[in-house]
Amino acid sequence: MENNLIAIGHIETPYTNLEECPRNISSNGPTCRLLVKDEFHEGLAGLESNQEILILYWLEDVNRNIMVQGTNPIRGTFSLRSPHRPNPIGAAVLPIVSITGGIITVEGLDCLDNTKLLDIKPAIRRETSEG
Amino acid sequence: MENNLIAIGHIETPYTNLEECPRNISSNGPTCRLLVKDEFHEGLAGLESNQEILILYWLEDVNRNIMVQGTNPIRGTFSLRSPHRPNPIGAAVLPIVSITGGIITVEGLDCLDNTKLLDIKPAIRRETSEG
Repeated sequence: MENNLIAIGHIETPYTNLEECPRNISSNGPTCRLLVKDEFHEGLAGLESNQEILILYWLEDVNRNIMVQGTNPIRGTFSLRSPHRPNPIGAAVLPIVSITGGIITVEGLDCLDNTKLLDIKPAIRRETSEG
Repeated sequence: MENNLIAIGHIETPYTNLEECPRNISSNGPTCRLLVKDEFHEGLAGLESNQEILILYWLEDVNRNIMVQGTNPIRGTFSLRSPHRPNPIGAAVLPIVSITGGIITVEGLDCLDNTKLLDIKPAIRRETSEG
């Protein structure tokens, strides 16, 4: 599996440990920023304020080997949004508040400060609350 | 970046080359199957028919180094759903048609047959057409 991931940038959030992170993204959460590295700026052409995007990011400090979690009931990892999973890739769909150069401002992300950003895609209708 | 990805299984679709793949997922497309490896079956506990899931998969045979694509207009890679991107991770939100053991049947995926499956998450309201 040719699977080396590249950080295209990083995410600024208010959270410095996993316990502080909210359990999911929230449309009225605090301001966060996606800081895209210079060499990837060209790839942002065409993204605009108010557009819904799907972002992927790499969740650190997790246990990648647990298949069931919680108690009463015990749940399978793939039925949960927990960061503890074999491939700890976080996903969030949310609108762009503003975009200037390589900085995209959004609101309400649930990940740690300095999380590595892996991808930005335009959300398709089925993934947004407008669907 | 501790970034080794693990295939938790693979995806069966009717498509054997990129030109055949539809440009996006379609709710009335052909039947596809997610075949989860034995060692990850426990992680499926709690997933049910009709539930919307977000799946992540690894896109092969792509160009990971192009930042702009298309003509008239030229578009940045991150404003497109193209498989050609720095981290070629595909994402789809769709309902489970049925789940039996490690086999999840879905409809209308857009990826190649034998695509490596990376993750299954329950979709949250904001990601589905019910949002």
